Amino acid sequence: MNTSIDFDKAGGLVPAIAQDAATGQVLMLAWMNREAYDETVRTGRAVYFSRSRNKLWRKGEESGNVQEVREIFVDCDADTVLLKVHQIGGAACHEGYASCFFRKAEQDGWRVIGERVFDPKQVYRK
Amino acid sequence: MNTSIDFDKAGGLVPAIAQDAATGQVLMLAWMNREAYDETVRTGRAVYFSRSRNKLWRKGEESGNVQEVREIFVDCDADTVLLKVHQIGGAACHEGYASCFFRKAEQDGWRVIGERVFDPKQVYRK
Repeated sequence: MNTSIDFDKAGGLVPAIAQDAATGQVLMLAWMNREAYDETVRTGRAVYFSRSRNKLWRKGEESGNVQEVREIFVDCDADTVLLKVHQIGGAACHEGYASCFFRKAEQDGWRVIGERVFDPKQVYRK
Repeated sequence: MNTSIDFDKAGGLVPAIAQDAATGQVLMLAWMNREAYDETVRTGRAVYFSRSRNKLWRKGEESGNVQEVREIFVDCDADTVLLKVHQIGGAACHEGYASCFFRKAEQDGWRVIGERVFDPKQVYRK
């Protein structure tokens, strides 16, 4: 099913947008290589590729906040993926917000418009 | 206002998601450099950077289907932008669909789920 996704265009990775399947809220953008995509399809849970850690990132593997994938879309150029997901725990962002896009541009800078669903210190214990 | 966007992380470009401000539909993903972002903020219309043409891409400059920007968000890592827009003409995709994500993954491949708003041949005359 993934043959038409153009993973080669940008060095093996494509951007993947996660959107809340119920509310339409855009939750985050991450990256997928072919392996991450295949595992996402196979397991029904979002798997990304972490550029900073240079390995597969099974979303929620640490926090428990996995993303159950409801639908997968590809764009016209076949170089971007859109996932409609159910976000377990209600927060996609590692900073505890429902969406990673919790800051909005205003005249005098960025304003935090999101409300924290969880306290990162409680979820990511070292 | 753009000082906190991390344009240097990936060679001067950040992904920019355009979402319909009224319906929440994800319309497309494109790229912005600092110049594109600044012009977007200044003009209130979405300006991207075309990687294939290697220049600024004032969305709708050819088709007339400009995107009026209602709100701008940045993500936690400050390396992705989310625009909430009003899409003039009702179609963001150069193939004539409202959204570039008009194909959905199914068991046996990709299925077109979008309906064409316009005929590309009529809009992009050579």
